[in-house]
Amino acid sequence: MLQAALRSGAAQRRSVFEVFTRRLPDGRRYGVLAGTGRVLDAVEDFRFTSPQLDWLADQNVVDEATLRFLADYRFTGDIHGYAEGEVYFPGSPVLTVEGSFAEAVILETVILSILNHDSAIAAAASRMTSAAGGRPCIEMGARRAHEGAAVAAARAAYIAGFAATSDLEAGFTHGIPTTGTAAHAFTLLHDSERDAFTAQIDSMGRGTTLLVDTYDLAEAVRTAVEVAGPTLGAVRIDSGDLTLLAHRVRRQLDELGADKTRIIVTSDLDEYAIAALAAAPVDGYGVGTSLVTGSGHPTCAMVYKLVARAATPDGPLVPVAKRSAGGKSSVGDRKWAARPLDAEGVAEAEVVGTGPVPGELEPHLLHVPLITAGEVVGREPLAAARERHLRARAALPLSATQLSKGEPVLATELRIAAAEGVPA
Amino acid sequence: MLQAALRSGAAQRRSVFEVFTRRLPDGRRYGVLAGTGRVLDAVEDFRFTSPQLDWLADQNVVDEATLRFLADYRFTGDIHGYAEGEVYFPGSPVLTVEGSFAEAVILETVILSILNHDSAIAAAASRMTSAAGGRPCIEMGARRAHEGAAVAAARAAYIAGFAATSDLEAGFTHGIPTTGTAAHAFTLLHDSERDAFTAQIDSMGRGTTLLVDTYDLAEAVRTAVEVAGPTLGAVRIDSGDLTLLAHRVRRQLDELGADKTRIIVTSDLDEYAIAALAAAPVDGYGVGTSLVTGSGHPTCAMVYKLVARAATPDGPLVPVAKRSAGGKSSVGDRKWAARPLDAEGVAEAEVVGTGPVPGELEPHLLHVPLITAGEVVGREPLAAARERHLRARAALPLSATQLSKGEPVLATELRIAAAEGVPA
Repeated sequence: MLQAALRSGAAQRRSVFEVFTRRLPDGRRYGVLAGTGRVLDAVEDFRFTSPQLDWLADQNVVDEATLRFLADYRFTGDIHGYAEGEVYFPGSPVLTVEGSFAEAVILETVILSILNHDSAIAAAASRMTSAAGGRPCIEMGARRAHEGAAVAAARAAYIAGFAATSDLEAGFTHGIPTTGTAAHAFTLLHDSERDAFTAQIDSMGRGTTLLVDTYDLAEAVRTAVEVAGPTLGAVRIDSGDLTLLAHRVRRQLDELGADKTRIIVTSDLDEYAIAALAAAPVDGYGVGTSLVTGSGHPTCAMVYKLVARAATPDGPLVPVAKRSAGGKSSVGDRKWAARPLDAEGVAEAEVVGTGPVPGELEPHLLHVPLITAGEVVGREPLAAARERHLRARAALPLSATQLSKGEPVLATELRIAAAEGVPA
Repeated sequence: MLQAALRSGAAQRRSVFEVFTRRLPDGRRYGVLAGTGRVLDAVEDFRFTSPQLDWLADQNVVDEATLRFLADYRFTGDIHGYAEGEVYFPGSPVLTVEGSFAEAVILETVILSILNHDSAIAAAASRMTSAAGGRPCIEMGARRAHEGAAVAAARAAYIAGFAATSDLEAGFTHGIPTTGTAAHAFTLLHDSERDAFTAQIDSMGRGTTLLVDTYDLAEAVRTAVEVAGPTLGAVRIDSGDLTLLAHRVRRQLDELGADKTRIIVTSDLDEYAIAALAAAPVDGYGVGTSLVTGSGHPTCAMVYKLVARAATPDGPLVPVAKRSAGGKSSVGDRKWAARPLDAEGVAEAEVVGTGPVPGELEPHLLHVPLITAGEVVGREPLAAARERHLRARAALPLSATQLSKGEPVLATELRIAAAEGVPA
């Protein structure tokens, strides 16, 4: 595609690509944009190495002119979009990439890979932290995801309100708080549960979390408090009927005087299981598989579509859109998006438009500049995205946090300008 | 866990960890092991960099002794397991890791990450290639998966019989055949569909694949053959009722004399959609989202469990197993696995045992040595895993390739040795 466009000359046409989704996963009330910060790094670092170029040449994947283009590649255009952590809805123009066709089209896969993955995790994570109320959720899913995806998943979960991750590489790479507990293997390694608990307390102190369900739960809790004393930090339960067991263990801990010892539960938790534990005496949730697989929706349906292009490198932009049947048509033209609030500060609608922005929507515009003339301008600390997400979610109508299936909590309102072209 | 074990001395106990799954995804008939080759690379390269060690020290994640252990880390033990591409069933000991507790426990996350991801993709891919019969399946899902996972997914799909990938990085990294077509953006970029087709043919030759559903399908097919002539390589249909449209386009191509022009279909295909197209005049399937998300099962439930350990670095191994309630108990001891065949060469059962191997099962043992005393001995070309998978699948009872939900096609038969201990 790139080679043919370079040859026909069309590669130099100024082009606008838009990232959006036609639908949220079945029944979800809102989407969560995550990965923007990683997109900025990826675009900034997007280069072809000599071994890669040699391989493309050896395999005759592209011609000489295309190899030269790739060897010199550097994105010089503009990217703006929703800030990371924002919520989004069907049709929200979450990212807009503008540049020559050649420099913009080549970013499609990396941008979509990052946003589709990270946003899927963040959307699931947001439902979990919302179901957990004020109780901390801990990301523990690394072993159930691709080793690179796991690190990105921990990052996305943190944006959506998770308290910490057990993935040390995610802590190292992204500065996310880390935590962890022992596995059953640690207990099985020692000659007795008591030996294992003693070894862990000796090394980690009384504030540690002891795993109490390797053999008999009640006996393990008794041993744990005997070994650690009543100031034991926490116990973890990883199997069985967690509601029942949490009540039982709480009663036992209280009777043993360990009334400050927290109870952490793990074991295939998802947002529904977390919600079901709301009335149980649980102090934290460790979430693995469901989190890193997006709780039933491991990817988003975000697409990267050409919405406008000029007929010359500097000519006026002309909106374009696929028009065939099959439910995959799209709306052409460069877009703005705004989310006006009512008097109580609750979001009213997702307004997506083309042409001039109505004055009353100006204060509610959602796009921020991310890359300008090839320079990253939108980098921010991860904490900013995290705060933004919690703020944006809190501004949604109350039904946003219902776990049951339903329609998107905000309707997307299209305001298409009458004019066919947009000034350059 | 590592720090506490180093301090208590238990870290030096010889240990055997086993990778297995308690169940296949709901209704699946067999699992497909993929990722072994990547595990070998990962274990060989498993090192901690200075910045990582500094971070662990700065954050007080581990103590001095543990930092020294990590700085010198190098796996010196043994790994054996099912060869890559093999099928597996609940309880199959797909990988066995033997070494000191410390050196083996630390590999848990990376080994599970790789096997859980790659095997999930391979299992879905295997159902797709089986549903496609002899028609080629092309991996086109990179944009719907994490950017690193996408490359691994292309590799796993190739093992399970996919013909090619559109992910050039996967071609570069793993030597998988690559292919690709143009996107709707390429047509929209040009002033007309005719211009776009002409540009593509000029650059890529008449053997290329033209995307014909941007505007009107019938008109696009007519234009395509006018521009390329009757030797046009292929057309791609990416939306609509694919069965209906494939018949219509086939008729039109034949009438235009392009009776050798192939029809490639894409558009949210999964194994069911592929099976439903069996009677349609389709020459190839491009599969994206469903493939890279494991067609409903994006991860496997593989776990990494301590099954035996010595009480001293060189003492005899003692089987260990979690015994608590909650359905997560496991069978201790180091295991062998065999898959005997009947007179017709059809697999009869998945036999998993401990202790001595019965003589009649010796020829059917599934484990191969992968790492011996820290040295990789099981590396092989990707093509070997691919051939092995097709062979192993072909040896399963016929019901293996039924797409409907059902029980695993082979029962797992446990043969537990009477003795409690195993000779060192």
